[in-house]
Amino acid sequence: MTIQPILKDTERIDQLATNDVKIIQSRDVFSYSIDAVLLSRFPNIPSRGQIVDLCAGNGAVGLFASSSTAAKIFEVEIQDRLADMAKRSVALNGLTEQVEVIQDDLANTLSYLAPSSTDLIFCNPPYFKLDDQSRVNESEHYLLARHELATNLDAISKVSQQLLKTNGHLAMVHRPERFFEIIETMKKYRLIPKRIQFVYPKGDRDANILLIDAIKDGRAGGEKFLPPLILHHDDGSYTDEVHKIYYG
Amino acid sequence: MTIQPILKDTERIDQLATNDVKIIQSRDVFSYSIDAVLLSRFPNIPSRGQIVDLCAGNGAVGLFASSSTAAKIFEVEIQDRLADMAKRSVALNGLTEQVEVIQDDLANTLSYLAPSSTDLIFCNPPYFKLDDQSRVNESEHYLLARHELATNLDAISKVSQQLLKTNGHLAMVHRPERFFEIIETMKKYRLIPKRIQFVYPKGDRDANILLIDAIKDGRAGGEKFLPPLILHHDDGSYTDEVHKIYYG
Repeated sequence: MTIQPILKDTERIDQLATNDVKIIQSRDVFSYSIDAVLLSRFPNIPSRGQIVDLCAGNGAVGLFASSSTAAKIFEVEIQDRLADMAKRSVALNGLTEQVEVIQDDLANTLSYLAPSSTDLIFCNPPYFKLDDQSRVNESEHYLLARHELATNLDAISKVSQQLLKTNGHLAMVHRPERFFEIIETMKKYRLIPKRIQFVYPKGDRDANILLIDAIKDGRAGGEKFLPPLILHHDDGSYTDEVHKIYYG
Repeated sequence: MTIQPILKDTERIDQLATNDVKIIQSRDVFSYSIDAVLLSRFPNIPSRGQIVDLCAGNGAVGLFASSSTAAKIFEVEIQDRLADMAKRSVALNGLTEQVEVIQDDLANTLSYLAPSSTDLIFCNPPYFKLDDQSRVNESEHYLLARHELATNLDAISKVSQQLLKTNGHLAMVHRPERFFEIIETMKKYRLIPKRIQFVYPKGDRDANILLIDAIKDGRAGGEKFLPPLILHHDDGSYTDEVHKIYYG
């Protein structure tokens, strides 16, 4: 087993049946959720050019996307422990030519990448505001990944506006209960949401995941709301659509 | 047949199997669509107080709602031909004590009703902007009902803010491609959308109807996106949910 030495304590290697990419993660530190899987499949992925993953965590979104493009991919992650996992996953998959990990605050991304250089930005940001009460009993790593301690919607939208080419896309996954705040913040930075998809845990439940595809300097109006994505049947089993995503 | 004399040329009387109310309509002049049926069922209907239906057309929405409330209902419709149909439907159903038709521009509603007097406003407004190219071959009645010739989102939101009590509700049906413009206009008049539902023609198609329940002077944030409402199975037949709405 040549891969064992790259794993640290509590880490494991996960792989989707539908994607050759292997991802190092750890329940104690960080592991990707279905949100990351859905985000990586949501936008049209350019076949070449430059892709940036902001709030990259252990790099899952950019690594999933790597298998369907020759574009250069930059993964920006502030936490050194998570960035380290992402770097080792990049090496594990032999993708060091295509995927690069930048360990820094995303507000500093312009120190590494040129303005108006990017075709597509992925972002799976912290979902919870600072005043949210739900941060009890979370490890430091999850705390930073889930709460707006180190970044927020304004900072993400600002750097996205700077990084993207005109008509470049920002694809974001977030929570529906912050939808209006998200579109207002994006609008402030001339990022116009064009394709939106709501994801529902079951067919008779409120949406709990939101996918947004916004265009830099896009024209307002004519937004599309894609078919509903329902995750589970009433009995808890995956719907055909989700089963196909996970198992092909 | 005692009801025949009240019908004018090309008119017929329609009735849902799930509602005792009879509605006079005419394909040549105006007939309600599923949008009106869904709107009438969308908000929580107050058991008493005052309800106003703006852009009432032939009065279908307010008449449907009448069967589940003792509230006084005012139907505001600018077109005299449609307001006349609504008045005859009110009489036909013996509801002249509960339902009153106001034939005027909705911008003048405050000439008839007191400010901050209303618990719930329904609105099934014209969907298309003036610059929309789709108004070829439409009769005058449909033209006014479908295009923003006589009113628009700003005028509707303005009069709604004036008519509603604090925490009163505005329930609107509209098209998803204007969602962002709608919430921005509502926000300008401190109408905060809280419950939103997207309606899809089929499970694999983009949303084509939007239902919004906004609260006057509500607190921003925490918006809910209700379970998707899918109208038809792949074979074109009604889904169980829609079948139940139409046939019980």
